Amino acid sequence: MNQPLPSSARESRRNFLLGLLGLTGGTLAAGTAARAAFTAMKSSTPHSPMNSLPRNAVILFQGDSITDCLRDRTRSWPNDPAALGAGYVGRLAGDLLAESPGAGWQFYNRGISGDRSIDLLGRWRREALALKPDLVSILVGVNDTWHESLTGNGVPVARYAEIYRMILEDTRRARPGVRLVLGEPFSLPGGEFKAEWMPELRERAAVVRALAREFAAAFVPYQQVFDEAQPRYTVAELAADGVHPSPLGHQLMAQAWRAAAGV
Amino acid sequence: MNQPLPSSARESRRNFLLGLLGLTGGTLAAGTAARAAFTAMKSSTPHSPMNSLPRNAVILFQGDSITDCLRDRTRSWPNDPAALGAGYVGRLAGDLLAESPGAGWQFYNRGISGDRSIDLLGRWRREALALKPDLVSILVGVNDTWHESLTGNGVPVARYAEIYRMILEDTRRARPGVRLVLGEPFSLPGGEFKAEWMPELRERAAVVRALAREFAAAFVPYQQVFDEAQPRYTVAELAADGVHPSPLGHQLMAQAWRAAAGV
Repeated sequence: MNQPLPSSARESRRNFLLGLLGLTGGTLAAGTAARAAFTAMKSSTPHSPMNSLPRNAVILFQGDSITDCLRDRTRSWPNDPAALGAGYVGRLAGDLLAESPGAGWQFYNRGISGDRSIDLLGRWRREALALKPDLVSILVGVNDTWHESLTGNGVPVARYAEIYRMILEDTRRARPGVRLVLGEPFSLPGGEFKAEWMPELRERAAVVRALAREFAAAFVPYQQVFDEAQPRYTVAELAADGVHPSPLGHQLMAQAWRAAAGV
Repeated sequence: MNQPLPSSARESRRNFLLGLLGLTGGTLAAGTAARAAFTAMKSSTPHSPMNSLPRNAVILFQGDSITDCLRDRTRSWPNDPAALGAGYVGRLAGDLLAESPGAGWQFYNRGISGDRSIDLLGRWRREALALKPDLVSILVGVNDTWHESLTGNGVPVARYAEIYRMILEDTRRARPGVRLVLGEPFSLPGGEFKAEWMPELRERAAVVRALAREFAAAFVPYQQVFDEAQPRYTVAELAADGVHPSPLGHQLMAQAWRAAAGV
């Protein structure tokens, strides 16, 4: 965990993870702790995608530049620091692998800068389903609005909803037991993303929230995270251009992702 | 017309075009001939997209490599020979403009080699709707099957139907009076496109035929054209690799397009 936790909670969380992975050496105490943690977590987070994730599970992050975050696209294998990029994905992979020795989870980042929902769908078979993911995390939507102004090639909200649904349907069909984590598209004021586009972005957020409910996915309220962070941090500290988070912003994203994913 | 026609038919066709364009100098005879031709044509081709196409109309061709056909993408203006490519689009533009002096029709080719239906949808706002077309001709589908084998990134038939429908819906919404011409995706035996993929391609053809009916579009039966041409010409003469037509193949395509479009 990145948030400060009392050591008992840390211990419980650690046991929980180990218990789920069958790595507790079979001790009753650890198993009990894991089950207690499991129960507590289930009640607080209805969809906990990391629950009982199998050993060697493939954990895929998909999205736009925020997910991409300068990853080295020539390196396609899992758990490679350069391949995971400089943002929230690498942070999550490092933290979760450190806390779960022996889990063997394979983290992939396949975000591509500039992608809209339609671009994800266009490469979904090759760059998502072909990896046979056990967990898929998606963050897409800001370019669906932004590109309308940049290039006259945005994706209207109604089409965004349909395309996003196709992505989720195709994923569920190809990987029936897949865990899904859907991120709220977000922006911060005063940067490249104009205030007048915010109502549309909030409509997209509502679409994602509804799809998360429908597809039993975890929902990461990134907009809320950044809205609430602004009294403590300036926008310049969080995401100077209003779209691409700073290291601090990515750290908050990683924390929010864990909270939503129940891990 | 590329097909041999008796001269009286040629004359009638010419008067028909001129009459529709108001270019007959107001003579009753030409107007009558035009109306007669119009009536005859309407009965034989229920959807004649070229009927009463306005002066200076924008005529857009969209699709994959067959439409692209080595066009010069640095030249974006209409009626440029290099920009129209080396295939059926340039042939049609030359023939129709030669037969319709003063029409001022603006022909654009925006086909892109390798495109699947989803790729068209992804660039439709910028590279179709932004041109404010009065007529849109689409030929796409062979890559939706072919790319599954080439790159593991095909588009299943059911998704093809949905994506294709989105393209047509968006076009009708943005340009309510737009004329539509939909081409049957096709392949010839013995080339790159394997015989075992043909049933799927024929399913796509059925999808396009049904969409043409639904959207009151003309349908160009290219597969039928190439099937029927094979007793007269060899596959090598028509399309050596089974996918990309020869000049002869493009000539047959242009003829078929005109027959379907009623011009």
